[in-house]
Amino acid sequence: MSPAPAKTSIGIGVIGLGTIGTGVVKVLRRSERVISERLGFPLRLVRIADIDTERDRGVDLSGVRFDADAQGLIEDPEVDIVVELIGGYDTARRFILRAIERGKHVVTANKALLALHGHEIFEAARRRGVDVGFEASVGGGIPILRALREGLAANRILSVHGIMNGTTNYVLTEMERTGEPFEVVLKRAQDLGYAEADPTFDVDGIDAAHKLTLLVAMAFGAQLTFEDIPTQGIRHIKPLDLEAAQEFGYRVKLLGIGKIVEAPDGGERIDVRIHPTMIPRESLLASVDGPMNAIAVHGDAVGPTLFYGAGAGELPTASAVVADLMEIGREIRRGSAGRVAPLSYLPEALSRKPLLGLGELFGRYYLCFTAKDRPGVLAEIAGALGEREIGIDSVIQKGRGRASESVPVIVLTHPAREAAVADALVEIDRLSDVTAATRVVRIEEEL
Amino acid sequence: MSPAPAKTSIGIGVIGLGTIGTGVVKVLRRSERVISERLGFPLRLVRIADIDTERDRGVDLSGVRFDADAQGLIEDPEVDIVVELIGGYDTARRFILRAIERGKHVVTANKALLALHGHEIFEAARRRGVDVGFEASVGGGIPILRALREGLAANRILSVHGIMNGTTNYVLTEMERTGEPFEVVLKRAQDLGYAEADPTFDVDGIDAAHKLTLLVAMAFGAQLTFEDIPTQGIRHIKPLDLEAAQEFGYRVKLLGIGKIVEAPDGGERIDVRIHPTMIPRESLLASVDGPMNAIAVHGDAVGPTLFYGAGAGELPTASAVVADLMEIGREIRRGSAGRVAPLSYLPEALSRKPLLGLGELFGRYYLCFTAKDRPGVLAEIAGALGEREIGIDSVIQKGRGRASESVPVIVLTHPAREAAVADALVEIDRLSDVTAATRVVRIEEEL
Repeated sequence: MSPAPAKTSIGIGVIGLGTIGTGVVKVLRRSERVISERLGFPLRLVRIADIDTERDRGVDLSGVRFDADAQGLIEDPEVDIVVELIGGYDTARRFILRAIERGKHVVTANKALLALHGHEIFEAARRRGVDVGFEASVGGGIPILRALREGLAANRILSVHGIMNGTTNYVLTEMERTGEPFEVVLKRAQDLGYAEADPTFDVDGIDAAHKLTLLVAMAFGAQLTFEDIPTQGIRHIKPLDLEAAQEFGYRVKLLGIGKIVEAPDGGERIDVRIHPTMIPRESLLASVDGPMNAIAVHGDAVGPTLFYGAGAGELPTASAVVADLMEIGREIRRGSAGRVAPLSYLPEALSRKPLLGLGELFGRYYLCFTAKDRPGVLAEIAGALGEREIGIDSVIQKGRGRASESVPVIVLTHPAREAAVADALVEIDRLSDVTAATRVVRIEEEL
Repeated sequence: MSPAPAKTSIGIGVIGLGTIGTGVVKVLRRSERVISERLGFPLRLVRIADIDTERDRGVDLSGVRFDADAQGLIEDPEVDIVVELIGGYDTARRFILRAIERGKHVVTANKALLALHGHEIFEAARRRGVDVGFEASVGGGIPILRALREGLAANRILSVHGIMNGTTNYVLTEMERTGEPFEVVLKRAQDLGYAEADPTFDVDGIDAAHKLTLLVAMAFGAQLTFEDIPTQGIRHIKPLDLEAAQEFGYRVKLLGIGKIVEAPDGGERIDVRIHPTMIPRESLLASVDGPMNAIAVHGDAVGPTLFYGAGAGELPTASAVVADLMEIGREIRRGSAGRVAPLSYLPEALSRKPLLGLGELFGRYYLCFTAKDRPGVLAEIAGALGEREIGIDSVIQKGRGRASESVPVIVLTHPAREAAVADALVEIDRLSDVTAATRVVRIEEEL
């Protein structure tokens, strides 16, 4: 047992002094004592690089070299761990790969980059014998990646699913509370800082898909890119849908879902998707409101588990970044880098696995038709469903009695194959009395 | 970087083949492949010791030496990690200390032992350079100890609280659902295997106090023994209390609570206690039903978090034991044992910290008086409270109009100092019209 000679402190370099970077500086400062009491050695912030060196971030940078020279930071022999917090693809990827090449460990919150170039980055780190920490990339401050990688590692994971994006959860919660439409609530979320100026990544489910890509790799050893994941955001959801969900005993949440399912041929498929989902109102996930995240993991031994916390924000995300810095600091001191496979499975155990097609899903559906308010419309709709053996569980039709106007007709189906539902909707949406595309929300009774 | 020479497999010895031990064998068998895919090497179950070698546990023990010789197991050079699952104090302590002395790593689920002799065991392990894993001792399969030790390690922890005992949560949930009294529900829980033949440890809160002792050490670096923790169980709770709680918008849960609070002198105190608690019905914790556990951790950076899952049972507990075996297996391979301090803080950073007295608590109280149903009783009670400036928020009095009978009088107070409440109850319980000891349930609006 001969550990590498111990360094008296571990040098940290941060590239990108935006919201998260500033949070990391704050946490390193305020937790300085507790970090030392846990590690037995300090984490020393030695250098920061950002293109904007002028703006006052309200943090104490005394004793820290702060300039725009990211390249110099990476090369700096005082820097043992490089924290990449600039986001985006090309530059971040270049910095990370360069840092690894120089033998530096890396911590990043960049889920987009890892969902696209994770394989290349993890492989480079493995070859060079350095660690890549990315707890902050999924679930903000919730230590969900550690839970999958270590705490639940003795399990065959059967499913991982949950609320992986705080912005959309805030918007849905507010739409439900106020009855206001998506656009109004989104605008307010932007004003409050819960949504970005360009909200596309969040509201279209892309951010959740990035995170699910990482979760599915760690849960099932399934190698996929986020483009493989059928993804639907929340732009089309109306307050009416949320209200109807309540009436039926559900709430609507944008869920990321990854499940192992048995295929008809006896083999295994991965059922993976992002979409607004109706879940029973009394479930724990349904109680997760506002910008909070919660990720449920079902393991064959442990059974159902749930991990809840802030999924974003300056300090929660920094909490995860600094946890990674502490872990890597320990590995450096003990010469044990690479001890744990970053994606929980060793690279040779990761593989592409066959995915379940959306058409193969079998479940209940919420359908909101928009139809002219005249006799016979419901019969036409019910006929198109019945022909495909899609049973109707409940109907809500609130007519106004004026045939010139369109009204919503809401149908909850019995369990049905999604291919049949999709096929029925093609026919129904062509009916002359149906005046807008039908809105569909999948229902998950048990996950 | 010169790791110790890698062993091709890690040898496991299990002492105690009861419920959890059998679960560990099952998980090692069924997860054999996923364990290898994550570790890159196998965990090999080489030896089991139990005084009962006859009973069929329904598990495959081929290739495993199984006898009653625990001492021989500890000495066996094939055994790298000793799993102690016999429970209790003396013998378990002796086995663990002997294993450590022989340079063996240890995994245990024995919260009672660690809550009493943890200091001695961790110190022996530190000196000998071996690891002690005990994830299974708190929260069953929930990886809550890892979360405190690593995932949330960058935080100053402000509070840790939650449902830490599944038996009592099952009993309370069932009492609420059926309206049946404690004794009836406990009997059923025993028949179903949710409660032990001797339920004392569970229903009197002692099991929760053992767990809270460990959690408070890891959260705050506070060294205490479970006897320091004011502990009240659930035996005295009546279905009426659960019903009244619902009427007021609460649910009753047996909570373990550990909080950092500021003392009047500006210093810090640890507020630590176990008791039935009324919490708002819409809180996540209030939704945790049946034998499930959930532990909330509030960190200064991460904010509120919650960890939910099965707190006991064969396979969930085994999930945590095998996670520890995997982690220690990795440390053995990399020569990095002792990398992380078992109680999250280094031993020298642990200290006794001043505790808050129960009398210093300030909050709202549910009081259920038992009084003769005649005029003037409520005035006497209200008078005793009013004299001590304890305001009354609500009263429920359902008289039967017969002075010979005693009826419940339920009072919800405004926020008050517990010392004043206790003082008032001494006076009230002496009143001739008050015929039984008053039941008190503390209310926590926000934790």
